[in-house]
Amino acid sequence: MHSYSTPPANLLEHISIQAPDPSLAADLQEKINAKTKPLGALGQLETLALKIGLVQQSLSPSIQKPALLLFAGDHGLATEGVSPYPQEVTTQMVLNFLGGGAAINVFARQHNLPLQVVDAGVKEDLPHHPLLINSKIGHSTANMRQKAAMTAAQCAEALQEGSRLVKTLQASGCNCLLLGEMGIGNTSAAALLMSYFCGLPLPDCTGAGTGLDGPGQQRKCEILQEVQSLHEPKVQTPFDALQHWGGFEIAMLCGAMLEAARLKMLILVDGFICTAALLPAFASQPAILDYCIFSHLSNESGHRKMLNHLGASPLLQLDLRLGEGTGAALAFPLVQAAANFLNEMASFSSAGVSQKQ
Amino acid sequence: MHSYSTPPANLLEHISIQAPDPSLAADLQEKINAKTKPLGALGQLETLALKIGLVQQSLSPSIQKPALLLFAGDHGLATEGVSPYPQEVTTQMVLNFLGGGAAINVFARQHNLPLQVVDAGVKEDLPHHPLLINSKIGHSTANMRQKAAMTAAQCAEALQEGSRLVKTLQASGCNCLLLGEMGIGNTSAAALLMSYFCGLPLPDCTGAGTGLDGPGQQRKCEILQEVQSLHEPKVQTPFDALQHWGGFEIAMLCGAMLEAARLKMLILVDGFICTAALLPAFASQPAILDYCIFSHLSNESGHRKMLNHLGASPLLQLDLRLGEGTGAALAFPLVQAAANFLNEMASFSSAGVSQKQ
Repeated sequence: MHSYSTPPANLLEHISIQAPDPSLAADLQEKINAKTKPLGALGQLETLALKIGLVQQSLSPSIQKPALLLFAGDHGLATEGVSPYPQEVTTQMVLNFLGGGAAINVFARQHNLPLQVVDAGVKEDLPHHPLLINSKIGHSTANMRQKAAMTAAQCAEALQEGSRLVKTLQASGCNCLLLGEMGIGNTSAAALLMSYFCGLPLPDCTGAGTGLDGPGQQRKCEILQEVQSLHEPKVQTPFDALQHWGGFEIAMLCGAMLEAARLKMLILVDGFICTAALLPAFASQPAILDYCIFSHLSNESGHRKMLNHLGASPLLQLDLRLGEGTGAALAFPLVQAAANFLNEMASFSSAGVSQKQ
Repeated sequence: MHSYSTPPANLLEHISIQAPDPSLAADLQEKINAKTKPLGALGQLETLALKIGLVQQSLSPSIQKPALLLFAGDHGLATEGVSPYPQEVTTQMVLNFLGGGAAINVFARQHNLPLQVVDAGVKEDLPHHPLLINSKIGHSTANMRQKAAMTAAQCAEALQEGSRLVKTLQASGCNCLLLGEMGIGNTSAAALLMSYFCGLPLPDCTGAGTGLDGPGQQRKCEILQEVQSLHEPKVQTPFDALQHWGGFEIAMLCGAMLEAARLKMLILVDGFICTAALLPAFASQPAILDYCIFSHLSNESGHRKMLNHLGASPLLQLDLRLGEGTGAALAFPLVQAAANFLNEMASFSSAGVSQKQ
């Protein structure tokens, strides 16, 4: 666990993210249009190639050392029955990640994506392991039914730690960050953040999570209504919302995304939880969106409305609802494909192919 | 060009495709459900894993030597202005494929998919090249505005040649076939086949192809209406439809798919043209669908209704409309991911993870 003599600066208020210089867009579009294919025939891959080129300010962008950070944390609210799985599954799944047996391990291996697991605040102490980063802010967040999920200092620390980890990755040569999370109860935190930042009532934001039935979802929503009312009077800023309703892994994700955008890296956002973690960052620094690639539309019921709030088009729609970064890892080859066609395809003139009449 | 002393047998009537034995389905589903993830949380990848396991009749299926066949052919109707590109672009694009500069080359390289280009009936004679298979049935099909696209013997020969090429691939160890096509004018042939096999009026089947504007599409549709009326009285069977309205590359695709299903291979169907080539096969041998994976929903306007006719759910929806097998190549990692999670993920019991309460 880290300790600070004074609370760390609140990253949400102490970072400035600039949109990429758009002046390269015309040249990028011209390069895309000159490729040997009908105009626009690569659909969303063309939009993606343009985005990647702008983020990297290059007509020949390159994905370098892509890496996946998987943030895990526990939630005090999990003891209230908002998930059909017991809280200890967070720890058990972290051990599964370290053992290489989870879905994200399979997909990360398939695409040669190095995976690091970050203990953002799992309830139990975890063994040392080469793939595990100990960034534990606390042993689970507090039960939001009683008090704010985090203290202001904890929340600020989690944001800073996410930022620090991304700085380290970037220093090692990574320019493409994939994000994932694990935490029993974290769809509840995400639903509360979504309700606040998207201005939508909780029933629009509350889903089945890992598999609640109808009555279970109803009960989850009632608990979240109570938690929302309890803290609403104290929430004035994006930081307040994150502190009261977030989670350690969610705040760390938020800090990681802020830093990645500041460093002009590409960010592959996973599903419902990762997108919720982006909401406070987007509220503070809307230009962050220019660096984000939305990997998939989750089957968690609120995700579509959350993406609509961000004006985001996801790459995949496979009814996934697993988290862990699985959607980001599965979408990664499409990101690589977008960069590849921009770099490798022949143009009409270089290949001697006739243009449209 | 091949020659037969007597016309080859009509594969559409001389092949029998059996559905995979469904008795393994329960064990496959049990294996999927025991993986460390909430029930159903991998969405369409779970459906896909079940399909792959059934096709291979294995609880541990394996994708072996996946390979892409790209069939190219010219269309006599292209001289009537149904495409905004001149007919010679078919040949030019074949040369581009052989030079490695087309989109499909980029995506096939990315996923280590060997690519062979098949000259099914390009108008011009093509140079020898290690990646080019000379299966030329003719120098372009006939102009359907005047007569049937192919003679019965040509159509039967194209079906047989598709079958022969797949037998060769399978003999070399391939159990997963990716398909693509190139041919200026082939969305017109595909629209006519779709109209016949799906029982839909031509305006529902006719799209922009490589980029026709509104008036261009209108004119294309009028020409297709005329061609439809001209040949309709002679079309009694799926083979008749393929012969009158198809194309060399389309008939060869159809034969390739029939043979691949007979040999219990997985078939990655690309977009609008490939799906149209499946329609006669599906009409004759409906069990072929059990072997087909629909890689993407094309942006060509009729594709959604064609997929609906087949009850098919595509993996990707990226607004692609390029053909060449690009959708199949881009979807391939998802097929691999489905097999991988089934083989590599830990189970709740092996990883010591608690089940749902």
